[in-house]
Amino acid sequence: MSDTEVDQRRSDGSLRHLLTLEALSRAEIERLLNKAQTFVRPLGVAPPIGDGLRGVTVANLFTEPSTRTRVSFELAAKRLGADVVNLEMQLSSRTKGESMLDTVYTLQSLHVDVMVIRDAEPGVPGLVAANVAPHVSVLSAGEAHVSHPTQGLLDALTVRQYKRRFEGLSIAIVGDIRHSRVARSSFHAFRTLGAPDIRIIAPPALMPADDEFAGCARHTSLTDGVRGVDVVMMLRIQRERMGQADLPDADRYFAQYGLTAEQLAHAKPDAIVMHPQPMNRGIEIASDVADGPQSVIRDQVRNGVAVRMAVLADVIGSRGGSIEGDD
Amino acid sequence: MSDTEVDQRRSDGSLRHLLTLEALSRAEIERLLNKAQTFVRPLGVAPPIGDGLRGVTVANLFTEPSTRTRVSFELAAKRLGADVVNLEMQLSSRTKGESMLDTVYTLQSLHVDVMVIRDAEPGVPGLVAANVAPHVSVLSAGEAHVSHPTQGLLDALTVRQYKRRFEGLSIAIVGDIRHSRVARSSFHAFRTLGAPDIRIIAPPALMPADDEFAGCARHTSLTDGVRGVDVVMMLRIQRERMGQADLPDADRYFAQYGLTAEQLAHAKPDAIVMHPQPMNRGIEIASDVADGPQSVIRDQVRNGVAVRMAVLADVIGSRGGSIEGDD
Amino acid sequence: MSDTEVDQRRSDGSLRHLLTLEALSRAEIERLLNKAQTFVRPLGVAPPIGDGLRGVTVANLFTEPSTRTRVSFELAAKRLGADVVNLEMQLSSRTKGESMLDTVYTLQSLHVDVMVIRDAEPGVPGLVAANVAPHVSVLSAGEAHVSHPTQGLLDALTVRQYKRRFEGLSIAIVGDIRHSRVARSSFHAFRTLGAPDIRIIAPPALMPADDEFAGCARHTSLTDGVRGVDVVMMLRIQRERMGQADLPDADRYFAQYGLTAEQLAHAKPDAIVMHPQPMNRGIEIASDVADGPQSVIRDQVRNGVAVRMAVLADVIGSRGGSIEGDD
Repeated sequence: MSDTEVDQRRSDGSLRHLLTLEALSRAEIERLLNKAQTFVRPLGVAPPIGDGLRGVTVANLFTEPSTRTRVSFELAAKRLGADVVNLEMQLSSRTKGESMLDTVYTLQSLHVDVMVIRDAEPGVPGLVAANVAPHVSVLSAGEAHVSHPTQGLLDALTVRQYKRRFEGLSIAIVGDIRHSRVARSSFHAFRTLGAPDIRIIAPPALMPADDEFAGCARHTSLTDGVRGVDVVMMLRIQRERMGQADLPDADRYFAQYGLTAEQLAHAKPDAIVMHPQPMNRGIEIASDVADGPQSVIRDQVRNGVAVRMAVLADVIGSRGGSIEGDD
Repeated sequence: MSDTEVDQRRSDGSLRHLLTLEALSRAEIERLLNKAQTFVRPLGVAPPIGDGLRGVTVANLFTEPSTRTRVSFELAAKRLGADVVNLEMQLSSRTKGESMLDTVYTLQSLHVDVMVIRDAEPGVPGLVAANVAPHVSVLSAGEAHVSHPTQGLLDALTVRQYKRRFEGLSIAIVGDIRHSRVARSSFHAFRTLGAPDIRIIAPPALMPADDEFAGCARHTSLTDGVRGVDVVMMLRIQRERMGQADLPDADRYFAQYGLTAEQLAHAKPDAIVMHPQPMNRGIEIASDVADGPQSVIRDQVRNGVAVRMAVLADVIGSRGGSIEGDD
Repeated sequence: MSDTEVDQRRSDGSLRHLLTLEALSRAEIERLLNKAQTFVRPLGVAPPIGDGLRGVTVANLFTEPSTRTRVSFELAAKRLGADVVNLEMQLSSRTKGESMLDTVYTLQSLHVDVMVIRDAEPGVPGLVAANVAPHVSVLSAGEAHVSHPTQGLLDALTVRQYKRRFEGLSIAIVGDIRHSRVARSSFHAFRTLGAPDIRIIAPPALMPADDEFAGCARHTSLTDGVRGVDVVMMLRIQRERMGQADLPDADRYFAQYGLTAEQLAHAKPDAIVMHPQPMNRGIEIASDVADGPQSVIRDQVRNGVAVRMAVLADVIGSRGGSIEGDD
């Protein structure tokens, strides 16, 4: 599938699609984070419920399963009053582009306003965005290894809640960087927001290409990489990759790259620990760290639904009004 | 499963079930089309939202997957304020009739008011309709090769929008007529509404039995069949049938029965092209025709949700009130 | 998975979780039945619709499929105005406990207030309840062979509707008692509510352990067991068990333990017949009995959604208000 170049903005500069964070300015990202913050509530406090999206239809079109992300988008849309339909489709690879577009045209004709697309192949969200009618918005819910923009935003929001500002921060991203859409999107968010020191830590076989993650220090030693950082962001590693050529097996991976209390002690004392989930406990992260006092993993989830509410409200609201969680 | 004969009407003549278009009068079909038209909005204009079905529960009970049709019914019901539950069930063939009825009795006891049934075997929607309580309505969402009444209505609505009246129209239905519930239902709608010249075009192996499609001219040549028609309605062909005994393979099928610009040129200059989707582009229809200026395929989809809103509003509204999209 | 002991009540004595009926007092069960009764409507009368749970999010987290129970909980929640999300997950057994808890923490962080859990392994609902935040409630929708509390309540409600009081009642539970969560929960409900004579009837291989079903007479003869009872409650038998060691095949099972009109004639003339569904007609119950005048099987289904509304309203309402169906 060709990697179609799509402008995410309308001619008046407002945000229409969210496919990648790369083209967003610092001001745009901060606007989305500020809006998301209005939707954040502490655990146990009822989430904001509104009808700002009443009459709007959101379709979750997922061609690879991801229950957690689907539910997060679904609740974000429902809490703003939208109608939501879920489609989980297996498209045969031979006719995938065509089938995807025909499905998208069908949804568009059913008066779907926002299409949330998740696909294992690069280019699909962009292809859809390039072909829908002007009033339709496309949000990526994860595109191959390329991009996962709402994850990048929720990671940035989480860091901001704990560290206030990105200037002066050291952030370590650890694990399967090469195949990670999360690493790419979060890196772009952190960098755009001003984080000066972003480090990537991975075994050589999981390092990204040289021209990616510009300006990041690269470490193959976890101990060296996390030294003195404010944020340790762990990535999920696919069990299937374990023990393959050039990769250690699960036990050796954990010994070398798993985040344990001992390894975390090399970071700053108030460093926060993040993970996009689902976690492989005992492989990329020790359970006591995942559940420990420095972990902000559950904040990430809570922030995820707030970010998705903000993005939905932003792309729809900028068609004509403004939708916020707080007055 | 026996093909139970069910009266689709209540004793006062109002519509209770929609299983087939065969028993509907011209006035009844026109009433449904008129009501559907009140729910039609152009692309980009918000669809009508109401609460005429508030407190009503609609269950989509599909035993063969059809995401598009399910979503169309789901949005139709939600936009009228109904609660919707989706059930996708595999019933073992040995006990299918019993299991289906027990499931239906369960749904009925859960206060489901409308059951939307899709099944690959003939007779199931009728069997259900014959057994539910008097206040429950059954809508077929596709019954084997037999019937797909809401598809017939949406096809008729689409033709009416472009051609105004059926008197004097020539309509060609092309492809796997033998196995097509769409062809059967649309034929009945067109015929009842007064279309004088309906032609069926298919390879000999895909022609229906002699006693079906009464009064239709039969063509094995696409060129001959589409000559001078106002409407060309293409059907989906199952790839699995390709290359079987008596059937050409995909390339030869496209050469003989695929609708290309060259073939379409034999129809009237303002002929419209229809397809129920999903399309096999390059097999039954050329992509440039599917996406070309004469294609009304996306109108069909838009009309589909309007027709389903109309049918839901009609069968429920005639229990006591009236529900329309426009005043 | 360890069988965590969890207190189902808050410190003020109100009900927070519903995992088992064993710890509930007669007054608590009667309060739930009374509340459920306010939500019961005859077939054909619109069910009560409210917004007592507006702003509340209910997640159905099912790791074994059960469409009927899922739909019953889904409609109960929607009719009280809650948002509902459905998750059907297959968790690999190796990491099941961890994966389940991480999923649950995710749902909690998404501001899910009630988790409805169904799992084939014992201990899972209790494990979840022991780990969620104080404002979150956990409802079991079926736990292995151990417990199915809302089924027990709906069975009790059904008996009460027909027999008014439990004092003096004779109740026969027939079939695969050993593996049945339904039998266990309904037994506890009947016993707590005062039924003096509860009999279990099963082939020897399907009898429960000696220390279970205390005080119940045990019969291996159906004829002896149902003699003079007020209630005959049949259980579903797994076809897979048929014809295994120590078990008769399906035909012989039906001959010995299937409820036929002849066998039912040994019960009281006004005895009612119950079954939790889905039924194996012709194996554990004859079709004419299942559909006959003494069958209250469809009442059970109707009562199921009322019971689930009552439980949802109770656990949420006791956080701060009161929600009923009737004034």
